[in-house]
Amino acid sequence: MPGNSFGHLFRYTTWGESHGPAIGCVVDGVPPRIPLAESDIQVFLDKRRPGQSRFTTQRKEPDRVKILSGVFEGQTTGTPISLVIENVDVRPKDYADIAVKFRPGHADYTYFKKYGIRDPRGGGRASARETAMRVAAGAIARKVLGAGVVIRGALIQIGTLAADRRRWDWNAVESNPFWCPDAAMVPEWERYLDDIRKQGSSVGAVIEVEASGVPAGWGEPVYDKLDADLAKAMMSINAVKGVEIGAGMRTASLRGEENADEIRMKNGAPVFLSNNAGGILGGISTGQDVVVRFAVKPTSSIATPRKTVTAKGEDTEISVKGRHDPCVGIRAVPVGEAMLAIVLADHMLRHKAQCG
Amino acid sequence: MPGNSFGHLFRYTTWGESHGPAIGCVVDGVPPRIPLAESDIQVFLDKRRPGQSRFTTQRKEPDRVKILSGVFEGQTTGTPISLVIENVDVRPKDYADIAVKFRPGHADYTYFKKYGIRDPRGGGRASARETAMRVAAGAIARKVLGAGVVIRGALIQIGTLAADRRRWDWNAVESNPFWCPDAAMVPEWERYLDDIRKQGSSVGAVIEVEASGVPAGWGEPVYDKLDADLAKAMMSINAVKGVEIGAGMRTASLRGEENADEIRMKNGAPVFLSNNAGGILGGISTGQDVVVRFAVKPTSSIATPRKTVTAKGEDTEISVKGRHDPCVGIRAVPVGEAMLAIVLADHMLRHKAQCG
Amino acid sequence: MPGNSFGHLFRYTTWGESHGPAIGCVVDGVPPRIPLAESDIQVFLDKRRPGQSRFTTQRKEPDRVKILSGVFEGQTTGTPISLVIENVDVRPKDYADIAVKFRPGHADYTYFKKYGIRDPRGGGRASARETAMRVAAGAIARKVLGAGVVIRGALIQIGTLAADRRRWDWNAVESNPFWCPDAAMVPEWERYLDDIRKQGSSVGAVIEVEASGVPAGWGEPVYDKLDADLAKAMMSINAVKGVEIGAGMRTASLRGEENADEIRMKNGAPVFLSNNAGGILGGISTGQDVVVRFAVKPTSSIATPRKTVTAKGEDTEISVKGRHDPCVGIRAVPVGEAMLAIVLADHMLRHKAQCG
Amino acid sequence: MPGNSFGHLFRYTTWGESHGPAIGCVVDGVPPRIPLAESDIQVFLDKRRPGQSRFTTQRKEPDRVKILSGVFEGQTTGTPISLVIENVDVRPKDYADIAVKFRPGHADYTYFKKYGIRDPRGGGRASARETAMRVAAGAIARKVLGAGVVIRGALIQIGTLAADRRRWDWNAVESNPFWCPDAAMVPEWERYLDDIRKQGSSVGAVIEVEASGVPAGWGEPVYDKLDADLAKAMMSINAVKGVEIGAGMRTASLRGEENADEIRMKNGAPVFLSNNAGGILGGISTGQDVVVRFAVKPTSSIATPRKTVTAKGEDTEISVKGRHDPCVGIRAVPVGEAMLAIVLADHMLRHKAQCG
Repeated sequence: MPGNSFGHLFRYTTWGESHGPAIGCVVDGVPPRIPLAESDIQVFLDKRRPGQSRFTTQRKEPDRVKILSGVFEGQTTGTPISLVIENVDVRPKDYADIAVKFRPGHADYTYFKKYGIRDPRGGGRASARETAMRVAAGAIARKVLGAGVVIRGALIQIGTLAADRRRWDWNAVESNPFWCPDAAMVPEWERYLDDIRKQGSSVGAVIEVEASGVPAGWGEPVYDKLDADLAKAMMSINAVKGVEIGAGMRTASLRGEENADEIRMKNGAPVFLSNNAGGILGGISTGQDVVVRFAVKPTSSIATPRKTVTAKGEDTEISVKGRHDPCVGIRAVPVGEAMLAIVLADHMLRHKAQCG
Repeated sequence: MPGNSFGHLFRYTTWGESHGPAIGCVVDGVPPRIPLAESDIQVFLDKRRPGQSRFTTQRKEPDRVKILSGVFEGQTTGTPISLVIENVDVRPKDYADIAVKFRPGHADYTYFKKYGIRDPRGGGRASARETAMRVAAGAIARKVLGAGVVIRGALIQIGTLAADRRRWDWNAVESNPFWCPDAAMVPEWERYLDDIRKQGSSVGAVIEVEASGVPAGWGEPVYDKLDADLAKAMMSINAVKGVEIGAGMRTASLRGEENADEIRMKNGAPVFLSNNAGGILGGISTGQDVVVRFAVKPTSSIATPRKTVTAKGEDTEISVKGRHDPCVGIRAVPVGEAMLAIVLADHMLRHKAQCG
Repeated sequence: MPGNSFGHLFRYTTWGESHGPAIGCVVDGVPPRIPLAESDIQVFLDKRRPGQSRFTTQRKEPDRVKILSGVFEGQTTGTPISLVIENVDVRPKDYADIAVKFRPGHADYTYFKKYGIRDPRGGGRASARETAMRVAAGAIARKVLGAGVVIRGALIQIGTLAADRRRWDWNAVESNPFWCPDAAMVPEWERYLDDIRKQGSSVGAVIEVEASGVPAGWGEPVYDKLDADLAKAMMSINAVKGVEIGAGMRTASLRGEENADEIRMKNGAPVFLSNNAGGILGGISTGQDVVVRFAVKPTSSIATPRKTVTAKGEDTEISVKGRHDPCVGIRAVPVGEAMLAIVLADHMLRHKAQCG
Repeated sequence: MPGNSFGHLFRYTTWGESHGPAIGCVVDGVPPRIPLAESDIQVFLDKRRPGQSRFTTQRKEPDRVKILSGVFEGQTTGTPISLVIENVDVRPKDYADIAVKFRPGHADYTYFKKYGIRDPRGGGRASARETAMRVAAGAIARKVLGAGVVIRGALIQIGTLAADRRRWDWNAVESNPFWCPDAAMVPEWERYLDDIRKQGSSVGAVIEVEASGVPAGWGEPVYDKLDADLAKAMMSINAVKGVEIGAGMRTASLRGEENADEIRMKNGAPVFLSNNAGGILGGISTGQDVVVRFAVKPTSSIATPRKTVTAKGEDTEISVKGRHDPCVGIRAVPVGEAMLAIVLADHMLRHKAQCG
């Protein structure tokens, strides 16, 4: 019940600090006899890996994952799967300054207030480095879900520049460094973000992830609703400040007849004529695509000097020099996909237990 | 682990259908020797109670709560507190139609898909009636938090009409049927909602709840972050489709130096110069006000005829005649407050266990 | 996570004090579309009900159970089932003495030390009255398990007099007030217990419960082993001080070749030639009968004067006059059966989720 | 919620197979600012380590533990502590035989029935090697409990030979290879066990563990009683078939006035005149020593040929040649101590949360 685990039947626990010797996780509850190799996980880690373009942190981490247990001769055995990634490009010295000053907008302050001690090397547990293990666990969750459930994500807004949904093209997503579904927006984002990067600043973003192929019936009313667990999953990602399902915050301004998705029979099956619900009604999947969006705030580690205080309670200023993402939202795309896969895998097993 | 419970150390479980004999909950983990009477709970139930103005459902429920256990001579004993409310104004016949047709935008469809059976009387468990027990549990959570933590809520948007934050007045909130903090908006909302009500339609809303007096340090990284649990709590409320913390979705368009709340010493203590973080950094409370917003979609039970299908798979139309809220978001204000209190009480106890 | 719930997927929570207005429980996670009526539960409550012979407490409780939710037109709906039993024969005045003096061997002392307050009416939550709701939840668990799993229990020892296993007859069990499987022992126990009862004393007992029809494969290594959960379940029953699986404590004195149950094929299926394992190996069911035994200590409420102290810290003596069981172990037989059913139902669902 | 974790607030998860590359665990919920070094853990691992006398398995494992996270500059940070031990003396070839034949009395059979696959190298997860991580987690639990709670254990019976309680000497325990508290019994056990070892057989044992310094008030009625959790903890240890608290199974034959521990004031505090309760009443600690006993069955891997079947369903015989403990109960002493420490640490935190 302490806070480093997620899920009920598909359940994983992460450990490790950003600049400690390694990070890792233990994934428990995986059904047996599922083919699983390190390469099945590595492919998703490579999507999230830092240093792949000038728009993400220049920390060089190969992020090579090792499976230490739970797999025998290429198949899961039903026992816990232990994964570990060594930290390679560790520079604790970069963090001398933040060991004594709190970065505004960063967890430095609250960790110190909570625990009375913290590991200042790169943010310790509060670092986005922890999300590598979410991606690793998410790769296993995809295996549990099977090929019938397809999970994809895209970056739909950087700062004030939103992708145009009318130009949405899933094929475009993999061919630009932003996971942008709108190819026409890519050069604009490049210019915009180069500018921000050079100024030592940062900017926020919006990510959209979706799952197709989810059957109707997943989700546990009334507190472990599918959307409630998705909201928790996404809000638990570093820097996320808002989560939406389907039409999201916009539903507030809709009227009943605009919002409710009508239904018609088509080839013997009920079909919804729109998807404002984002594939979830009453906390249970409808069979439509599950659609989740979340906003990531701008990185708080910026070069611009900011007013803050020291651990001793003195006024000071801070300007962070380390290697940081100008838009951490970019690398949040594979993380959001992973969390969606994890929530779905957990609910698939829960549904099977009670109603399967 | 089934879905009808919430919280870890302050934990409650609700039961009961909208038109069954009663609804109730069991609240477990309450510290002993806290003064508690039925009237402490009733005061909050009365805020949520239906039929208090023409803008909420006309179902007449006195919502009288009874304490059946866990309290001895006016004090909690540390054992489970069982609460029950009898359903009085039950009209199962109103629901003959929805027993065979699915209401678009309603959980009718998904409950049937999940369980292969459902209690059609007024939505059964999917009815907003369940939220009465959230409010009851929330009243006990407030007692656990003590007088130092003050929780308040307001309705800040109905449909396309948003309250003006510059006119925010907490005193106004209790003096209008909408819990609106902007007195000037009240007559506009009255006209707007009367119109919608007469048309047999409905409309969405945005609620904001906040807690002051929360000390720095509450919240459990990295998955049970305070904001992650708040997101889950709010998204689990009927009809909620979006949740925001502090600046919320808007942070996507901010730059690092705009977003990060700067800090200065004041009277020997660190003070934040803004609150975009909504009182939470790295999933842990900062000591500032905790600020949460959520959007409620328009009620799906409307008089306007809508395309749908029957349980047998035939195309049909439905037009719902029962007694429904034109804007269910109004009664969501005390529910949102309750969920905020519950999440905070749980995290207070969790923090005390590990770091107290 | 507070202590008044049991089970993970089949999960129930009990509430209520021995001499409060009522006791009850909420059973969550029950699969939908299982036929269930109050009479299905009542039949087991009637087995446990006090006052049925001179060998159990003379408190007169009809123990009429009511289903308040989760069942629609005779079938479970998959939503929480709320059960309640009104307390009828309440005599709080009987307990004036124990409100100030601690009964040796009773939870009076520890509840007061833990909570700094207690409900002294009949032991409050510590009373064996709580076990009525275990029996009620157990009746539902049997329904979940289905007719293929048969659960039975017997009293095999009262004080120093043990039933003779060679005369074991399941038909005898229902035809005597002790649930004794050895008809020849019944008159001896009658004389023995009459004697103890007249002396105002009490005595301990051993209960054995078994389940046949459990398939191989239930149980979750390595901490939620089937036997580990059974040990917890039985030890959580009032007054239990020891739990054994299969050959139990006696295995300590066995050699490897005596203890290990050999296997042979028979009609195409593996058959064990003995059952020292009690149907469980490595925490997982083998397909043999699951066999559990537990010892119940003598009731601590006895008429014999005993040395004790008051809540204020003065030496005193206590002699308890109320209506108490001379051998509370008798009524523990249906309780043990219920806990066995509950643990199995929970593990059936857990197994189905991961490996089904 | 899958089965490889234990505890609620002090919670740990183990992973790894007996002959895989490594075993490990993640300990979460540890309070911050507790001094902790690898040597604090190593000292207990060294007690359990195999190959230290001719009476335990000859597998040579240095069992060197490494801390990978959660500790900064010698202090816990409140974040998860990851521990790992490399497997050094791995001989998968020893296990060719058991990959196809089921060892009677071993989990081989049930793992295969449950998962349809298993890692046969040395029993995989079912191996007693997993208990090394219990000992490691237990060492951290002791740190959480602090110096005021002292946990000790002893082996009190091997096969048919029981230690004499009248000669109990805690100083003797550390000076013989059996952890025997009765020095006079040691030579007898040596002869007895040499005999069994040479015959390629094995034998069971009884272990007693106790904790002094536990304050009154720990334990959560009514399902998470301190004794219920201890029963689960001990029964989850490999090969355990019975668990007793205080007078244990023997209470069945006692009368009320013999069993109930009387109380008297002494130096201003209540003192119990005996300890049949084993320090627990109503599931809550009394302040007396907590006393737990458990029986370990004889190792099922023996040289004597035994009837069994193959995975393909053919009758056969098996005789196990590997390196095995003639009395696995010896090494269960530090494991039982660890589980006692873990349960107490968890309940200390739980008590603090609700009543502290």
